[in-house]
Amino acid sequence: MDEKSFLEKILPCFRQDGTVLAGPGDDCAVIDVGAGRLLLWAVDQLVEGVHFESPATSPASAAAKLVRRNVSDIAAMGGKPSYALLTAAANFAGKGINASWIGKFMRAVSREASRWTMSVCGGDLASNPDRAVFTLSIAGWVEKDRLCLRSGARDGDLLYATGRFGNSFSSGHHLDFVPRLAEARFLAGRFTRAMIDVSDGLLSDAGQIAKASGLGLEIFAGQVLLRRGATLAQALGQGEDYELLFAVSPSKAVRLAREWPFKKTPLSRVGRFSSGIPCGKLLGEDGCDLSVRFKGGYSHM
Amino acid sequence: MDEKSFLEKILPCFRQDGTVLAGPGDDCAVIDVGAGRLLLWAVDQLVEGVHFESPATSPASAAAKLVRRNVSDIAAMGGKPSYALLTAAANFAGKGINASWIGKFMRAVSREASRWTMSVCGGDLASNPDRAVFTLSIAGWVEKDRLCLRSGARDGDLLYATGRFGNSFSSGHHLDFVPRLAEARFLAGRFTRAMIDVSDGLLSDAGQIAKASGLGLEIFAGQVLLRRGATLAQALGQGEDYELLFAVSPSKAVRLAREWPFKKTPLSRVGRFSSGIPCGKLLGEDGCDLSVRFKGGYSHM
Repeated sequence: MDEKSFLEKILPCFRQDGTVLAGPGDDCAVIDVGAGRLLLWAVDQLVEGVHFESPATSPASAAAKLVRRNVSDIAAMGGKPSYALLTAAANFAGKGINASWIGKFMRAVSREASRWTMSVCGGDLASNPDRAVFTLSIAGWVEKDRLCLRSGARDGDLLYATGRFGNSFSSGHHLDFVPRLAEARFLAGRFTRAMIDVSDGLLSDAGQIAKASGLGLEIFAGQVLLRRGATLAQALGQGEDYELLFAVSPSKAVRLAREWPFKKTPLSRVGRFSSGIPCGKLLGEDGCDLSVRFKGGYSHM
Repeated sequence: MDEKSFLEKILPCFRQDGTVLAGPGDDCAVIDVGAGRLLLWAVDQLVEGVHFESPATSPASAAAKLVRRNVSDIAAMGGKPSYALLTAAANFAGKGINASWIGKFMRAVSREASRWTMSVCGGDLASNPDRAVFTLSIAGWVEKDRLCLRSGARDGDLLYATGRFGNSFSSGHHLDFVPRLAEARFLAGRFTRAMIDVSDGLLSDAGQIAKASGLGLEIFAGQVLLRRGATLAQALGQGEDYELLFAVSPSKAVRLAREWPFKKTPLSRVGRFSSGIPCGKLLGEDGCDLSVRFKGGYSHM
């Protein structure tokens, strides 16, 4: 069973109270705490040998990946990160990832957290004789009128992407990427109300916005910017790009191009949402079904 | 290196911003979100073969333990639980703890969360070929004038305990205990501002309050209520009792005894805080140093 099928089966059992504006299924949970702004809350894991290799990956690189993946989730909702909790389940007396490694890792998490304006305000340690598992829970804030949800795309909206895609693993991008926090804050509310960060793959994550918004999507595959050496198939399917995908009304497209202040972050127009395409379906410009041609995307499970 | 030494070395590197009223070192982080009440935030882990055995422990029992340990942390701060995030790192296609087991576990987490008035509003799944690791992050609320911190004990305060101690593992109590949420809510603010739940052992956790409050502690070992079959040494040192220890001003002792409404939860007066005893030191009634006699406590690391 893949992650999506498992989640589709299990998620309906989690009931939400009225203050939970978005529960499982978006990049973050969104909670109305009655403070005039919304609490964003997410968690991510880092498993030794799955998300990073030791000793090939340094404690500092592993820490950066864990923190930045979480920051990217907060960014995709239009918000700013503020707080984090850290857990480690590892063999502290072992030979590989032990107390010394974890000490370096935690110091690096602390530095990374500060860089992204977060306080690591708690956590938990546990003994785990086998491979090390780390988690970071992250909380942040978003103004109500800047909240971006996967369900926020409208018929006719254009799908934009930041940056380049593909070869994230072989290029090391998955370890040293910079989350698009500044870009997301610029976009949220002003240009978009529907955003996602690309972790599972461009097509897979674009499909999440389409599906949640009850729309289909025409993909302009030729417009997708490729990371150096990447093929189009890799750019569309591989994942861990941590770029933003977001929906923009055509009436704002000219202004977006004019006002975009991030000279080093290219923007590309990679698709258009349409009620004329079945919900969640992705078509190429030649009418072919891309969800079939580039099946899959990266499964973290 | 044990957990305490490791934490003493690493925790100072985590800097907190001004909204974090209590960071690493208490049962929960306490954050002032400016909503007239304080956000409590904690995380706990459950590692296969460390915190529970499979198949000896059912998915429902493992789920109950994970949720209730977290609820107990929120209770110890005087608060009420509201939200949770769940992670699972496991071999979903394996023979032991696989997709089917995890499905049952997650349904049980959902039921348990509802019982304790929580919404499980997000989480993360990851592949982990070896032993399964689960985490639950939990958020709750406490009124500002009911917040209980380890540092809240005053010279002369009495140390009270709920319930009975010892033999938590052999009796199965560590799997089927009921967190003292109602008792804690009754006590918080009205009778105490210093509370902890006993996970590492009565002496070890009582010592945490004493140390954080800058006081020593005289322990009335003869007053400690024992779980059936437990020795005093087990009651003082073993841990995972999930009972409350809390400081009460002597002027409130009579009223506490009169008003205590929980007929099934015995109260015992197990110590007295004193500025005449070195900070963090625990003495028996005969003047012996209990921190030496019952060294250790249970280390989760």
